[in-house]
Amino acid sequence: MRTGSPLLRLSFGTGSSPTCQRRVALPPGAIPLLGFKLPAMAPPPSSEQPDAAAPGAGAISRVLVVMAMEKEAMPLVNKFKLVEAPARESIFPKGAPWTRFYGIYKDLHLDLVMPGKDAVFGVDSVGTVSAALVTYASIQALKPDLIINAGTAGGFKAKGASVKDVFLASDVAFHDRRIPIPVFDMYGIGARKTFAAPNILNELNFKLGKLSTGDSLDMSPQDEEAILSNDATIKDMEGAAVAYVADMFSTPAIFVKAVTDIVDGDKPTAEEFLNNLISVTAALDVAVTKLVDFICGKRISDL
Amino acid sequence: MRTGSPLLRLSFGTGSSPTCQRRVALPPGAIPLLGFKLPAMAPPPSSEQPDAAAPGAGAISRVLVVMAMEKEAMPLVNKFKLVEAPARESIFPKGAPWTRFYGIYKDLHLDLVMPGKDAVFGVDSVGTVSAALVTYASIQALKPDLIINAGTAGGFKAKGASVKDVFLASDVAFHDRRIPIPVFDMYGIGARKTFAAPNILNELNFKLGKLSTGDSLDMSPQDEEAILSNDATIKDMEGAAVAYVADMFSTPAIFVKAVTDIVDGDKPTAEEFLNNLISVTAALDVAVTKLVDFICGKRISDL
Repeated sequence: MRTGSPLLRLSFGTGSSPTCQRRVALPPGAIPLLGFKLPAMAPPPSSEQPDAAAPGAGAISRVLVVMAMEKEAMPLVNKFKLVEAPARESIFPKGAPWTRFYGIYKDLHLDLVMPGKDAVFGVDSVGTVSAALVTYASIQALKPDLIINAGTAGGFKAKGASVKDVFLASDVAFHDRRIPIPVFDMYGIGARKTFAAPNILNELNFKLGKLSTGDSLDMSPQDEEAILSNDATIKDMEGAAVAYVADMFSTPAIFVKAVTDIVDGDKPTAEEFLNNLISVTAALDVAVTKLVDFICGKRISDL
Repeated sequence: MRTGSPLLRLSFGTGSSPTCQRRVALPPGAIPLLGFKLPAMAPPPSSEQPDAAAPGAGAISRVLVVMAMEKEAMPLVNKFKLVEAPARESIFPKGAPWTRFYGIYKDLHLDLVMPGKDAVFGVDSVGTVSAALVTYASIQALKPDLIINAGTAGGFKAKGASVKDVFLASDVAFHDRRIPIPVFDMYGIGARKTFAAPNILNELNFKLGKLSTGDSLDMSPQDEEAILSNDATIKDMEGAAVAYVADMFSTPAIFVKAVTDIVDGDKPTAEEFLNNLISVTAALDVAVTKLVDFICGKRISDL
């Protein structure tokens, strides 16, 4: 059975943490110029930037990391010495299972949010609905300058993916929202370019590929057809939903996905997944740490 | 092609509007008793009820109607003489396409919200992600006592559905979130009982059936298998997502779905859909009007 398995990840804190390299200031009130095209992530107006940990004017101050699963996220929580927001001080309303860890890391306000454990079943609330909700609530409460959606994913070798690769998503789309009515069909697919970050790509050795998102861990023939049509190299269960909400509020978002298994390979997914889990999630951890270190002190337009 | 078509609906205002029948007061601070079981919709604590249009203590004050498409909703907007909230007074943040109409209807604060037009494609933002987001934002801003998710749906004749039937959903579940890992599989399906409303069922002549929700208008073999497993009589694109969010915040929710086409019938969906559209959406309009009239002056426990 050829399936993608962007779930049940374990991750271990092994990331490096070089110091900030540079800090480039914009004149107060200046809005960074970005080479994006619509539909694409746009930067927030500088007036919406929250109080910062005193970076240079225009520098990125608040970064929101959105992750789906606790076991993916906890190594980064430890790495960045984040603390969990107590329930009484939660930015989320009572009833929502969403969790938030936060702290100051170098120049940055870092918030790491997760959809949390399902109230009925006790498992991580994976998938598009939960990811969209926690991203929405976090944007409203925190007004981040930048979102990083980090996680593991299935990869397609036919598109150049190998296990342990870390990808930045150039584009996102859905592969399980088939609405065969003109224009609704395109809405369902919801393809959009992500925020372009050429300097991250060049300096941090990420690969670039298109990401396709769906709410199933497996891949039906209809999903496969849509993934091919989306020209996707990687497959996850949250990315396009996070992108949809980020775009709604003009918040630039970066999608960092580490490949645990080859969807179009000949190894059984479960076996490949288990064999690669530790090394791949460690690679994700290193990648996100490098990314956050790179962001530190920079403007959106420096990315 | 056998497909369900809960989209592209037109609706016409033909509903009746009997006056409120009765009003039963609870002692101040009393919490209505409900015969629900978990996972199921629960009532909000009475302390969370917002300011009412002066109903009896404990009576339902604020009703939130969630609908996916403008053409389904506008007849009800006109019927209840609701007005659109201007952008400058929106309860929703700038950037969100969600729309709200509101007004006082008899004893009730009525709010009718929709996910609105997609910013890129200009079509109604159908599906689970948008429905969950607008339901979440509306619950937070309005603290409704009761949610009504109204719309059209495909029906299964093998389960007793006929065109023009109006169903209350006894249960909701997803049919396109396949996560074949123990416990995650049940989370993905997300089956839950809805708020039980036996008096509505008995007095308003609705049928009772299980609702299955997915983000595709068509039905793949995998969807069909899951819908059968969900024991569903009707199929839509939002219900289970609205239920998920309503349940998160213990807001009772009622699902009213009118059948436009028979998914397991022998007529081409498009033809059947077009032939039945006007009469079915008129039936939905009548049903929602009767429902709102029935709710007027009642407590949650009277439903």
